[in-house]
Amino acid sequence: MANPGPGRPRLEQRTRRGRTPRAEILDAAGELFTTNGYATTSTRAVADAVGIRQASLYHHFAAKDDILDALLAETIATPLELAVRMRDLPERADTRLYALAWFDVRQLCAAHWNLGALYLLPELRTDRFASFRLRRDELRGHYETFAAAVIAEAADDAVPGAEVLPFRLVETVINMRSDEGAAPAYAERTIPDATLRMLGWAGDLREVRAAAGRLLDRLAVPLPLG
Amino acid sequence: MANPGPGRPRLEQRTRRGRTPRAEILDAAGELFTTNGYATTSTRAVADAVGIRQASLYHHFAAKDDILDALLAETIATPLELAVRMRDLPERADTRLYALAWFDVRQLCAAHWNLGALYLLPELRTDRFASFRLRRDELRGHYETFAAAVIAEAADDAVPGAEVLPFRLVETVINMRSDEGAAPAYAERTIPDATLRMLGWAGDLREVRAAAGRLLDRLAVPLPLG
Repeated sequence: MANPGPGRPRLEQRTRRGRTPRAEILDAAGELFTTNGYATTSTRAVADAVGIRQASLYHHFAAKDDILDALLAETIATPLELAVRMRDLPERADTRLYALAWFDVRQLCAAHWNLGALYLLPELRTDRFASFRLRRDELRGHYETFAAAVIAEAADDAVPGAEVLPFRLVETVINMRSDEGAAPAYAERTIPDATLRMLGWAGDLREVRAAAGRLLDRLAVPLPLG
Repeated sequence: MANPGPGRPRLEQRTRRGRTPRAEILDAAGELFTTNGYATTSTRAVADAVGIRQASLYHHFAAKDDILDALLAETIATPLELAVRMRDLPERADTRLYALAWFDVRQLCAAHWNLGALYLLPELRTDRFASFRLRRDELRGHYETFAAAVIAEAADDAVPGAEVLPFRLVETVINMRSDEGAAPAYAERTIPDATLRMLGWAGDLREVRAAAGRLLDRLAVPLPLG
Protein backbone atom coordinates (compact mmCIF):
# COMPACT_ATOMS: atom_id res chain seq x y z
CA MET A 1 0.00 0.00 0.00
CA ALA A 2 1.26 3.45 -0.87
CA ASN A 3 1.52 6.08 1.77
CA PRO A 4 -1.72 8.01 1.66
CA GLY A 5 0.21 11.24 2.15
CA PRO A 6 0.59 13.62 5.04
CA GLY A 7 -2.52 15.14 6.49
CA ARG A 8 -4.81 12.96 4.42
CA PRO A 9 -6.78 10.76 6.77
CA ARG A 10 -7.49 7.24 5.59
CA LEU A 11 -11.22 6.61 5.43
CA GLU A 12 -10.78 3.09 6.70
CA GLN A 13 -7.78 1.79 8.50
CA ARG A 14 -8.71 -1.86 8.22
CA THR A 15 -7.62 -4.03 5.37
CA ARG A 16 -9.95 -3.77 2.43
CA ARG A 17 -12.01 -6.72 1.39
CA GLY A 18 -10.84 -8.44 -1.75
CA ARG A 19 -7.68 -10.15 -2.77
CA THR A 20 -6.95 -8.03 -5.78
CA PRO A 21 -6.48 -4.28 -6.19
CA ARG A 22 -9.59 -4.25 -8.38
CA ALA A 23 -11.67 -5.85 -5.63
CA GLU A 24 -10.27 -3.43 -3.06
CA ILE A 25 -11.21 -0.48 -5.26
CA LEU A 26 -14.73 -1.85 -5.63
CA ASP A 27 -15.07 -2.36 -1.89
CA ALA A 28 -13.89 1.16 -1.08
CA ALA A 29 -16.10 2.67 -3.78
CA GLY A 30 -19.08 0.64 -2.55
CA GLU A 31 -18.59 2.11 0.89
CA LEU A 32 -18.09 5.69 -0.28
CA PHE A 33 -20.92 5.67 -2.82
CA THR A 34 -23.45 4.27 -0.36
CA THR A 35 -22.22 6.25 2.66
CA ASN A 36 -21.25 9.65 1.24
CA GLY A 37 -23.03 9.59 -2.10
CA TYR A 38 -21.98 8.91 -5.67
CA ALA A 39 -21.88 12.46 -7.05
CA THR A 40 -19.75 13.79 -4.22
CA THR A 41 -17.22 10.93 -4.21
CA SER A 42 -14.17 11.50 -6.42
CA THR A 43 -11.93 8.80 -7.84
CA ARG A 44 -9.26 10.47 -5.73
CA ALA A 45 -11.26 9.74 -2.59
CA VAL A 46 -11.64 6.11 -3.68
CA ALA A 47 -7.91 5.78 -4.33
CA ASP A 48 -7.17 7.34 -0.94
CA ALA A 49 -9.53 4.95 0.79
CA VAL A 50 -7.72 2.00 -0.77
CA GLY A 51 -4.33 3.52 -0.11
CA ILE A 52 -3.23 3.62 -3.73
CA ARG A 53 -2.41 6.44 -6.11
CA GLN A 54 -5.10 7.78 -8.38
CA ALA A 55 -3.00 6.73 -11.39
CA SER A 56 -3.08 3.14 -10.14
CA LEU A 57 -6.84 3.31 -9.86
CA TYR A 58 -7.08 4.45 -13.46
CA HIS A 59 -5.16 1.35 -14.44
CA HIS A 60 -8.25 -0.66 -13.38
CA PHE A 61 -11.08 1.77 -14.09
CA ALA A 62 -10.90 4.55 -16.67
CA ALA A 63 -13.56 6.64 -14.96
CA LYS A 64 -15.82 6.78 -11.93
CA ASP A 65 -18.83 5.57 -13.87
CA ASP A 66 -16.93 2.40 -14.78
CA ILE A 67 -16.57 1.67 -11.07
CA LEU A 68 -20.29 2.25 -10.54
CA ASP A 69 -21.12 0.04 -13.51
CA ALA A 70 -18.99 -2.79 -12.10
CA LEU A 71 -20.60 -2.47 -8.66
CA LEU A 72 -24.11 -2.48 -10.11
CA ALA A 73 -23.31 -5.49 -12.26
CA GLU A 74 -22.40 -7.43 -9.10
CA THR A 75 -25.88 -6.90 -7.67
CA ILE A 76 -27.60 -8.80 -10.46
CA ALA A 77 -24.97 -11.13 -11.94
CA THR A 78 -25.63 -14.23 -9.83
CA PRO A 79 -29.44 -14.03 -9.67
CA LEU A 80 -29.51 -13.48 -13.43
CA GLU A 81 -27.27 -16.50 -14.00
CA LEU A 82 -29.49 -18.55 -11.71
CA ALA A 83 -32.67 -17.45 -13.50
CA VAL A 84 -31.20 -18.37 -16.89
CA ARG A 85 -30.16 -21.80 -15.63
CA MET A 86 -33.60 -22.46 -14.17
CA ARG A 87 -35.57 -21.21 -17.15
CA ASP A 88 -35.95 -24.52 -18.91
CA LEU A 89 -35.84 -26.87 -15.94
CA PRO A 90 -38.80 -29.23 -15.45
CA GLU A 91 -39.42 -28.07 -11.87
CA ARG A 92 -42.72 -26.39 -11.12
CA ALA A 93 -42.74 -22.63 -11.56
CA ASP A 94 -43.54 -22.08 -7.85
CA THR A 95 -40.34 -23.90 -6.89
CA ARG A 96 -38.25 -21.94 -9.37
CA LEU A 97 -39.73 -18.56 -8.40
CA TYR A 98 -39.25 -19.37 -4.72
CA ALA A 99 -35.63 -20.41 -5.32
CA LEU A 100 -34.87 -17.24 -7.28
CA ALA A 101 -36.47 -14.95 -4.69
CA TRP A 102 -34.78 -16.77 -1.80
CA PHE A 103 -31.36 -16.63 -3.39
CA ASP A 104 -31.77 -12.99 -4.44
CA VAL A 105 -32.96 -11.78 -1.02
CA ARG A 106 -30.01 -13.54 0.56
CA GLN A 107 -27.46 -12.11 -1.80
CA LEU A 108 -28.92 -8.58 -1.48
CA CYS A 109 -28.77 -8.92 2.33
CA ALA A 110 -25.31 -10.47 2.35
CA ALA A 111 -23.61 -7.95 0.07
CA HIS A 112 -21.27 -5.92 2.18
CA TRP A 113 -22.59 -2.57 0.94
CA ASN A 114 -26.21 -1.86 0.15
CA LEU A 115 -25.47 -1.24 -3.51
CA GLY A 116 -29.09 -1.52 -4.60
CA ALA A 117 -29.59 1.91 -3.03
CA LEU A 118 -27.73 3.19 -6.09
CA TYR A 119 -30.47 1.98 -8.48
CA LEU A 120 -32.39 5.21 -7.92
CA LEU A 121 -29.50 7.51 -8.83
CA PRO A 122 -30.45 9.88 -11.65
CA GLU A 123 -27.13 8.95 -13.31
CA LEU A 124 -28.53 5.46 -13.99
CA ARG A 125 -31.01 6.85 -16.46
CA THR A 126 -28.22 8.05 -18.76
CA ASP A 127 -26.96 6.18 -21.84
CA ARG A 128 -23.83 5.17 -19.94
CA PHE A 129 -25.91 2.70 -17.93
CA ALA A 130 -28.17 1.47 -20.72
CA SER A 131 -26.43 -1.90 -20.74
CA PHE A 132 -26.86 -2.34 -16.98
CA ARG A 133 -30.52 -1.34 -17.23
CA LEU A 134 -31.03 -3.95 -19.94
CA ARG A 135 -29.54 -6.68 -17.79
CA ARG A 136 -31.63 -5.68 -14.79
CA ASP A 137 -34.71 -5.64 -17.05
CA GLU A 138 -33.72 -9.13 -18.16
CA LEU A 139 -33.69 -10.31 -14.54
CA ARG A 140 -37.04 -8.59 -13.97
CA GLY A 141 -38.36 -10.39 -17.06
CA HIS A 142 -37.37 -13.79 -15.65
CA TYR A 143 -39.18 -13.00 -12.39
CA GLU A 144 -42.28 -12.00 -14.34
CA THR A 145 -42.18 -15.12 -16.51
CA PHE A 146 -41.86 -17.42 -13.50
CA ALA A 147 -44.59 -15.49 -11.66
CA ALA A 148 -46.95 -15.63 -14.64
CA ALA A 149 -46.38 -19.39 -14.79
CA VAL A 150 -47.18 -19.71 -11.06
CA ILE A 151 -50.43 -17.85 -11.65
CA ALA A 152 -51.25 -20.06 -14.63
CA GLU A 153 -50.39 -23.27 -12.74
CA ALA A 154 -52.00 -22.79 -9.44
CA ALA A 155 -53.70 -19.54 -8.58
CA ASP A 156 -57.45 -19.79 -8.24
CA ASP A 157 -57.86 -16.18 -7.42
CA ALA A 158 -55.01 -14.25 -8.95
CA VAL A 159 -54.65 -10.50 -8.57
CA PRO A 160 -54.42 -9.08 -12.11
CA GLY A 161 -50.96 -7.68 -12.83
CA ALA A 162 -49.45 -9.31 -9.76
CA GLU A 163 -46.70 -10.98 -11.81
CA VAL A 164 -44.74 -7.72 -11.70
CA LEU A 165 -44.63 -7.65 -7.90
CA PRO A 166 -42.26 -10.48 -6.84
CA PHE A 167 -39.21 -8.72 -8.34
CA ARG A 168 -40.27 -5.51 -6.62
CA LEU A 169 -40.91 -7.18 -3.28
CA VAL A 170 -37.47 -8.83 -3.32
CA GLU A 171 -35.80 -5.47 -3.88
CA THR A 172 -37.50 -4.02 -0.79
CA VAL A 173 -34.68 -5.54 1.27
CA ILE A 174 -32.64 -2.64 -0.12
CA ASN A 175 -35.04 -0.19 1.56
CA MET A 176 -35.07 -2.24 4.76
CA ARG A 177 -31.27 -2.12 4.87
CA SER A 178 -31.28 1.60 4.20
CA ASP A 179 -33.88 2.38 6.88
CA GLU A 180 -32.93 -0.11 9.55
CA GLY A 181 -29.24 -0.73 8.97
CA ALA A 182 -29.93 -4.36 8.10
CA ALA A 183 -32.84 -6.34 6.73
CA PRO A 184 -34.50 -8.41 9.46
CA ALA A 185 -33.26 -11.99 9.64
CA TYR A 186 -36.73 -13.31 8.80
CA ALA A 187 -36.74 -11.46 5.43
CA GLU A 188 -35.18 -14.44 3.67
CA ARG A 189 -38.17 -16.54 4.60
CA THR A 190 -40.95 -13.94 4.73
CA ILE A 191 -40.27 -12.36 1.35
CA PRO A 192 -40.14 -15.57 -0.75
CA ASP A 193 -43.20 -16.84 1.15
CA ALA A 194 -45.12 -13.61 0.53
CA THR A 195 -44.01 -13.62 -3.10
CA LEU A 196 -46.04 -16.78 -3.73
CA ARG A 197 -48.96 -15.80 -1.50
CA MET A 198 -49.52 -12.50 -3.26
CA LEU A 199 -49.87 -14.33 -6.57
CA GLY A 200 -52.92 -16.07 -5.14
CA TRP A 201 -50.91 -19.28 -4.64
CA ALA A 202 -52.35 -21.34 -1.81
CA GLY A 203 -49.91 -24.27 -1.60
CA ASP A 204 -47.77 -25.54 1.28
CA LEU A 205 -44.95 -23.08 1.95
CA ARG A 206 -42.76 -25.57 3.82
CA GLU A 207 -42.88 -27.96 0.90
CA VAL A 208 -42.03 -25.36 -1.71
CA ARG A 209 -39.21 -24.01 0.44
CA ALA A 210 -37.75 -27.49 0.84
CA ALA A 211 -38.02 -28.12 -2.92
CA ALA A 212 -36.39 -24.75 -3.67
CA GLY A 213 -33.55 -25.56 -1.26
CA ARG A 214 -32.96 -28.90 -2.99
CA LEU A 215 -32.98 -27.21 -6.37
CA LEU A 216 -30.41 -24.63 -5.28
CA ASP A 217 -28.26 -27.42 -3.81
CA ARG A 218 -28.44 -29.38 -7.02
CA LEU A 219 -27.49 -26.34 -9.07
CA ALA A 220 -24.64 -25.83 -6.61
CA VAL A 221 -25.63 -22.21 -6.12
CA PRO A 222 -24.21 -21.35 -2.74
CA LEU A 223 -26.65 -19.36 -0.64
CA PRO A 224 -24.53 -16.51 0.75
CA LEU A 225 -24.14 -16.72 4.53
CA GLY A 226 -25.75 -20.16 4.13
CA MET B 1 -40.30 36.77 -12.61
CA ALA B 2 -36.81 38.23 -12.39
CA ASN B 3 -34.53 38.04 -15.36
CA PRO B 4 -32.49 34.86 -14.92
CA GLY B 5 -29.41 36.73 -16.12
CA PRO B 6 -27.50 36.74 -19.36
CA GLY B 7 -26.12 33.47 -20.60
CA ARG B 8 -27.86 31.47 -17.92
CA PRO B 9 -30.28 29.07 -19.55
CA ARG B 10 -33.56 28.54 -17.75
CA LEU B 11 -34.00 24.88 -16.89
CA GLU B 12 -37.70 25.03 -17.63
CA GLN B 13 -39.41 27.70 -19.59
CA ARG B 14 -42.92 26.73 -18.63
CA THR B 15 -44.70 28.25 -15.70
CA ARG B 16 -43.90 26.50 -12.47
CA ARG B 17 -46.55 24.60 -10.64
CA GLY B 18 -47.77 26.25 -7.47
CA ARG B 19 -49.46 29.51 -6.74
CA THR B 20 -46.91 30.80 -4.28
CA PRO B 21 -43.18 31.41 -4.60
CA ARG B 22 -42.64 28.72 -1.96
CA ALA B 23 -44.57 26.16 -4.02
CA GLU B 24 -42.66 27.15 -7.16
CA ILE B 25 -39.35 26.68 -5.36
CA LEU B 26 -40.47 23.23 -4.18
CA ASP B 27 -41.57 22.25 -7.68
CA ALA B 28 -38.28 23.33 -9.24
CA ALA B 29 -36.24 21.65 -6.51
CA GLY B 30 -38.30 18.46 -6.87
CA GLU B 31 -37.44 18.37 -10.54
CA LEU B 32 -33.74 19.14 -10.09
CA PHE B 33 -33.20 16.81 -7.13
CA THR B 34 -34.86 13.86 -8.88
CA THR B 35 -33.46 14.59 -12.34
CA ASN B 36 -29.94 15.86 -11.72
CA GLY B 37 -29.36 14.68 -8.16
CA TYR B 38 -29.49 16.31 -4.75
CA ALA B 39 -25.78 16.72 -4.04
CA THR B 40 -25.04 18.37 -7.36
CA THR B 41 -27.97 20.80 -7.30
CA SER B 42 -27.21 24.18 -5.75
CA THR B 43 -29.75 26.58 -4.30
CA ARG B 44 -28.57 28.90 -7.06
CA ALA B 45 -29.70 26.36 -9.67
CA VAL B 46 -33.08 26.09 -7.93
CA ALA B 47 -33.49 29.88 -7.87
CA ASP B 48 -32.54 30.07 -11.55
CA ALA B 49 -35.06 27.38 -12.44
CA VAL B 50 -37.81 29.37 -10.73
CA GLY B 51 -36.58 32.63 -12.18
CA ILE B 52 -35.92 34.35 -8.86
CA ARG B 53 -32.79 35.61 -7.16
CA GLN B 54 -30.99 33.38 -4.72
CA ALA B 55 -31.64 35.96 -1.99
CA SER B 56 -35.38 35.59 -2.59
CA LEU B 57 -35.08 31.83 -2.25
CA TYR B 58 -33.34 32.23 1.10
CA HIS B 59 -36.33 34.24 2.25
CA HIS B 60 -38.34 30.98 2.06
CA PHE B 61 -35.70 28.37 2.83
CA ALA B 62 -32.56 29.05 4.82
CA ALA B 63 -30.63 26.17 3.25
CA LYS B 64 -30.87 23.42 0.66
CA ASP B 65 -31.60 20.76 3.25
CA ASP B 66 -34.67 22.73 4.37
CA ILE B 67 -36.01 22.42 0.83
CA LEU B 68 -35.34 18.68 0.82
CA ASP B 69 -36.99 18.32 4.22
CA ALA B 70 -40.13 20.13 2.99
CA LEU B 71 -40.28 17.95 -0.15
CA LEU B 72 -39.88 14.74 1.86
CA ALA B 73 -42.55 15.84 4.33
CA GLU B 74 -45.03 16.15 1.42
CA THR B 75 -44.55 12.48 0.52
CA ILE B 76 -45.88 11.24 3.85
CA ALA B 77 -48.07 14.02 5.25
CA THR B 78 -51.44 12.96 3.83
CA PRO B 79 -51.06 9.17 4.27
CA LEU B 80 -49.91 9.76 7.85
CA GLU B 81 -52.90 11.99 8.55
CA LEU B 82 -55.19 9.37 7.04
CA ALA B 83 -53.65 6.58 9.11
CA VAL B 84 -54.06 8.57 12.32
CA ARG B 85 -57.71 9.32 11.51
CA MET B 86 -58.42 5.65 10.77
CA ARG B 87 -56.60 4.26 13.77
CA ASP B 88 -59.54 4.12 16.12
CA LEU B 89 -62.36 3.66 13.63
CA PRO B 90 -64.61 0.62 14.04
CA GLU B 91 -64.04 -0.58 10.45
CA ARG B 92 -62.37 -3.92 9.98
CA ALA B 93 -58.58 -3.80 9.76
CA ASP B 94 -58.61 -5.20 6.19
CA THR B 95 -60.73 -2.25 5.04
CA ARG B 96 -58.48 0.27 6.77
CA LEU B 97 -55.25 -1.28 5.50
CA TYR B 98 -56.66 -1.45 1.98
CA ALA B 99 -57.78 2.20 2.14
CA LEU B 100 -54.38 3.35 3.39
CA ALA B 101 -52.46 1.38 0.75
CA TRP B 102 -54.79 2.51 -2.03
CA PHE B 103 -54.57 6.16 -1.07
CA ASP B 104 -50.80 6.00 -0.60
CA VAL B 105 -50.12 4.27 -3.94
CA ARG B 106 -52.24 6.89 -5.67
CA GLN B 107 -50.56 9.84 -4.04
CA LEU B 108 -47.08 8.41 -4.71
CA CYS B 109 -48.04 7.90 -8.37
CA ALA B 110 -49.74 11.28 -8.71
CA ALA B 111 -46.97 13.39 -7.19
CA HIS B 112 -45.42 15.37 -9.99
CA TRP B 113 -41.85 14.36 -9.13
CA ASN B 114 -40.85 10.94 -7.88
CA LEU B 115 -39.69 12.30 -4.54
CA GLY B 116 -39.61 8.91 -2.83
CA ALA B 117 -36.46 8.23 -4.88
CA LEU B 118 -34.78 10.61 -2.43
CA TYR B 119 -35.45 8.29 0.56
CA LEU B 120 -32.25 6.38 -0.21
CA LEU B 121 -29.98 9.43 -0.19
CA PRO B 122 -27.13 9.02 2.30
CA GLU B 123 -27.96 12.54 3.52
CA LEU B 124 -31.21 11.21 5.01
CA ARG B 125 -29.29 9.23 7.59
CA THR B 126 -27.88 12.40 9.16
CA ASP B 127 -29.28 14.13 12.25
CA ARG B 128 -30.75 16.86 10.07
CA PHE B 129 -33.41 14.43 8.87
CA ALA B 130 -34.06 12.64 12.17
CA SER B 131 -37.46 14.29 12.46
CA PHE B 132 -38.48 13.21 8.95
CA ARG B 133 -37.27 9.68 9.64
CA LEU B 134 -39.37 9.58 12.81
CA ARG B 135 -42.49 10.62 10.94
CA ARG B 136 -41.90 8.07 8.19
CA ASP B 137 -41.34 5.43 10.90
CA GLU B 138 -44.65 6.51 12.39
CA LEU B 139 -46.41 5.90 9.07
CA ARG B 140 -44.63 2.55 8.79
CA GLY B 141 -45.83 1.73 12.30
CA HIS B 142 -49.46 2.38 11.34
CA TYR B 143 -49.13 0.06 8.35
CA GLU B 144 -47.67 -2.63 10.58
CA THR B 145 -50.40 -2.23 13.20
CA PHE B 146 -53.17 -2.48 10.61
CA ALA B 147 -51.45 -5.44 8.93
CA ALA B 148 -50.97 -7.27 12.24
CA ALA B 149 -54.68 -6.78 12.95
CA VAL B 150 -55.56 -8.19 9.51
CA ILE B 151 -53.47 -11.25 10.29
CA ALA B 152 -55.11 -11.60 13.71
CA GLU B 153 -58.63 -11.14 12.27
CA ALA B 154 -58.60 -13.29 9.26
CA ALA B 155 -55.45 -15.03 8.15
CA ASP B 156 -55.58 -18.79 8.49
CA ASP B 157 -52.14 -19.25 7.12
CA ALA B 158 -50.12 -16.14 7.82
CA VAL B 159 -46.52 -15.78 6.73
CA PRO B 160 -44.55 -14.92 9.90
CA GLY B 161 -43.24 -11.37 9.80
CA ALA B 162 -45.43 -10.43 6.84
CA GLU B 163 -46.87 -7.42 8.67
CA VAL B 164 -43.77 -5.43 7.70
CA LEU B 165 -44.34 -5.96 3.98
CA PRO B 166 -47.41 -3.86 3.03
CA PHE B 167 -45.60 -0.57 3.68
CA ARG B 168 -42.66 -1.83 1.64
CA LEU B 169 -44.81 -3.07 -1.23
CA VAL B 170 -46.61 0.29 -1.47
CA GLU B 171 -43.28 2.09 -1.76
CA THR B 172 -42.27 -0.07 -4.73
CA VAL B 173 -44.26 2.33 -6.94
CA ILE B 174 -41.26 4.63 -6.42
CA ASN B 175 -39.02 2.03 -8.06
CA MET B 176 -41.55 1.42 -10.83
CA ARG B 177 -41.65 5.13 -11.58
CA SER B 178 -37.87 5.32 -11.56
CA ASP B 179 -37.41 2.33 -13.87
CA GLU B 180 -40.35 2.74 -16.18
CA GLY B 181 -41.03 6.48 -16.12
CA ALA B 182 -44.44 5.86 -14.55
CA ALA B 183 -46.03 3.19 -12.41
CA PRO B 184 -48.43 1.04 -14.42
CA ALA B 185 -52.04 2.17 -14.21
CA TYR B 186 -53.04 -1.13 -12.59
CA ALA B 187 -50.66 -0.55 -9.63
CA GLU B 188 -53.36 1.22 -7.67
CA ARG B 189 -55.46 -1.92 -7.72
CA THR B 190 -52.79 -4.61 -7.84
CA ILE B 191 -50.72 -3.33 -4.93
CA PRO B 192 -53.54 -2.92 -2.38
CA ASP B 193 -54.95 -6.30 -3.50
CA ALA B 194 -51.56 -7.99 -3.14
CA THR B 195 -51.02 -6.29 0.22
CA LEU B 196 -53.93 -8.25 1.69
CA ARG B 197 -53.20 -11.49 -0.16
CA MET B 198 -49.62 -11.67 1.06
CA LEU B 199 -50.86 -11.48 4.67
CA GLY B 200 -52.65 -14.78 4.08
CA TRP B 201 -55.99 -12.96 3.81
CA ALA B 202 -58.43 -14.89 1.64
CA GLY B 203 -61.47 -12.60 1.55
CA ASP B 204 -63.30 -11.01 -1.37
CA LEU B 205 -61.14 -8.31 -2.92
CA ARG B 206 -64.00 -6.50 -4.66
CA GLU B 207 -65.87 -6.17 -1.38
CA VAL B 208 -62.91 -4.84 0.56
CA ARG B 209 -62.08 -2.39 -2.22
CA ALA B 210 -65.66 -1.09 -2.25
CA ALA B 211 -65.64 -0.73 1.54
CA ALA B 212 -62.28 1.07 1.42
CA GLY B 213 -63.61 3.45 -1.25
CA ARG B 214 -66.65 4.25 0.91
CA LEU B 215 -64.42 4.84 3.92
CA LEU B 216 -62.19 7.25 1.98
CA ASP B 217 -65.29 9.06 0.68
CA ARG B 218 -66.68 9.39 4.17
CA LEU B 219 -63.37 10.74 5.48
CA ALA B 220 -63.41 13.15 2.53
CA VAL B 221 -59.88 12.16 1.61
CA PRO B 222 -59.65 13.00 -2.05
CA LEU B 223 -57.95 10.29 -4.04
CA PRO B 224 -55.47 12.18 -6.23
CA LEU B 225 -56.32 11.92 -9.94
CA GLY B 226 -59.77 10.70 -8.93
